[in-house]
Amino acid sequence: MGRTDATTGIGIASLAVDSTAMVEAELLSIGSELLLGETVDTNAAYLAGELAGLGIPLRHARMVPDGRAAIRDAFAQAMARSAVVVATGGLGPTHDDLTREGLADALGETLAEDAELVAVIEERFRAFGPMPAANRRQAELIPSAEAVPNPIGSAPGWWVERESSVTALMPGVPSEMRLMWTDQLRPRLARRYDLPALAMRTVKAFGIGESALAERLGTLLEAPPTGVDAGIYARDDGVHVRFSTAGDPGGLDALVSATRDALGEHAYGIDDEDLASAALARLGALGATTLASWEADTQGALLAILSATPPLEGSARFVGGTLDAGGASGPPVGDAVIQLSLLPQDAHGRSRVRVAITGTVSLPMTELRIHGSGPQRLRRAAFAALDAVRRL
Amino acid sequence: MGRTDATTGIGIASLAVDSTAMVEAELLSIGSELLLGETVDTNAAYLAGELAGLGIPLRHARMVPDGRAAIRDAFAQAMARSAVVVATGGLGPTHDDLTREGLADALGETLAEDAELVAVIEERFRAFGPMPAANRRQAELIPSAEAVPNPIGSAPGWWVERESSVTALMPGVPSEMRLMWTDQLRPRLARRYDLPALAMRTVKAFGIGESALAERLGTLLEAPPTGVDAGIYARDDGVHVRFSTAGDPGGLDALVSATRDALGEHAYGIDDEDLASAALARLGALGATTLASWEADTQGALLAILSATPPLEGSARFVGGTLDAGGASGPPVGDAVIQLSLLPQDAHGRSRVRVAITGTVSLPMTELRIHGSGPQRLRRAAFAALDAVRRL
Repeated sequence: MGRTDATTGIGIASLAVDSTAMVEAELLSIGSELLLGETVDTNAAYLAGELAGLGIPLRHARMVPDGRAAIRDAFAQAMARSAVVVATGGLGPTHDDLTREGLADALGETLAEDAELVAVIEERFRAFGPMPAANRRQAELIPSAEAVPNPIGSAPGWWVERESSVTALMPGVPSEMRLMWTDQLRPRLARRYDLPALAMRTVKAFGIGESALAERLGTLLEAPPTGVDAGIYARDDGVHVRFSTAGDPGGLDALVSATRDALGEHAYGIDDEDLASAALARLGALGATTLASWEADTQGALLAILSATPPLEGSARFVGGTLDAGGASGPPVGDAVIQLSLLPQDAHGRSRVRVAITGTVSLPMTELRIHGSGPQRLRRAAFAALDAVRRL
Repeated sequence: MGRTDATTGIGIASLAVDSTAMVEAELLSIGSELLLGETVDTNAAYLAGELAGLGIPLRHARMVPDGRAAIRDAFAQAMARSAVVVATGGLGPTHDDLTREGLADALGETLAEDAELVAVIEERFRAFGPMPAANRRQAELIPSAEAVPNPIGSAPGWWVERESSVTALMPGVPSEMRLMWTDQLRPRLARRYDLPALAMRTVKAFGIGESALAERLGTLLEAPPTGVDAGIYARDDGVHVRFSTAGDPGGLDALVSATRDALGEHAYGIDDEDLASAALARLGALGATTLASWEADTQGALLAILSATPPLEGSARFVGGTLDAGGASGPPVGDAVIQLSLLPQDAHGRSRVRVAITGTVSLPMTELRIHGSGPQRLRRAAFAALDAVRRL
């Protein structure tokens, strides 16, 4: 997934700057590999979304190289202006992992090995052999810090609570970070600040451009009720209209209904409802119990999306797919078979997509157009095909 | 791709802080959607890598919300400390696209519509109908700014050159940004600063952990020659050992050879050489001219990687693959057929992978282990299978 909607985001600015009473968060993504472009920082978007959902909006987010002074300065600045500071990365065992040292310096505290933490890390290594000496560094703490267990990695997190602020350190490895966040840090922050969560509702549409959509929605987007923010986002799976509020979540229901009505046939889902589920539901309603797929020149984008979609009662079930790269596979077998071909991109960045369905349910070959390059182009081709199925 | 290697990066810190004579860059990723977690900022990693390759290391990278004052302050701070400031996003036609205004404020200049630019944007819209009124904003410039053409979108970029610094604005849409960067801004920056590019060489290995690898490499990693930096990175396709220098690129050859020798059978490629190409080359050497794939519980990760791999002379050619989600497809057809099953994840985040090959070339069912969650887990399963093929 790329950064697909930087030119949209109507109305979102007010969400990010209005409320002065809110607890605000700052994010430090620590690691020179980020500033060298070696690694895409997917953690930042994940944590930004999570913090918004908690009602602790993210005001600052930056990358920090692996230098002790740079990390110290970044923590000092962040703690001076933000109540909640979340940092990822730099907790590994090598000499370049300096997040612990940088935070200790910012707080004027000294690192010391924690015997209990040594035992935890040694236990983790038991299955593989003795703990490497380097990993002892991961058992160091400062007096203000409490270790946060990492059940799937050797780097413990830190929770540092002071009168007015919280600083949390997590590993940079996404799976370790997400588990630590979800199971431990997120609930703890929610308790610590007892804040109203930000309620968000999303209406998703396909086959309509952003400006046409904005025109149809009119005041719903331009002048939503007080305390409600509205934004539109271009995504690979269409355009999302999002309403959010720190007030009464029930107040969003009428906006969602009005948006859905205004978008008519283009609207395909609310909140977590996705285009693949809508397509499979439509096939189920038309009597197909299974769906197989055949695709060419898409790197398997359609089968990837379909196989990631959980089966639902009454919907067609995806039973498998074939990527044809020159005649390798037998034909797929299902009540319905969807066929997708992606044609080459033209000079303006547009591509044609051919979709057909055969079997219990059928659709003659239909040609659609998509925009975009790279992985986005492949996914958009797949979503265009699923939209055609949903509209059957 | 996630942020996979935040706990590694040995030796890289020195690359990011040593040289004080270098021209340095700062990156502003502009858009409230980034701070709300709506969008993963893939542009930052792309541009960071590109700037490193140009020899203009990135020192600061931050996200900036869609507020005129916030954008103004971010530009003012960036221009005060960095010779090159690159910004993406906020160049669209809506009222929340305020990058032009923010930079104008930071420079104390006034925006005015540029007649030539209006004509360019109108021409772009001609195929679709009249230019929407909102898009006139995209034709505004300040006296210091020169418009940079955007052949695949309506938002022109900006190039602002002052005595000691350059500021470049690009759209946030990745395809538009990359084309504008590659064709126009990168060559222009290279000419403007006439700097020695940073030479980088990478040795890639699979099936060896980072600490075992570091031990085998010893002083190659810990004490590379003066002027050379060495780093190791955990990736989905194994571990990468990277050497970089702003000096003589030829000096890296001996390091690459020594690293390859030290890693033995684990080393599979240099620089752009990838694991799938190595696997297809090995099959070709063993007499298979075509490869098909069958996989289960991987969302098609193996066929996605194989179909993204360009065919090479003398290598087996990938002719297609099947994702089996319950018996949908006929068996794949190829000289050799690789079969991959991914078993469920255990409580420690590990998964077993089963690989077999049938046909002209054969491999009895082999069980491997991988770490990781989410999309990373699926890709690692596919790479483990490709590594087994490469070692045949």
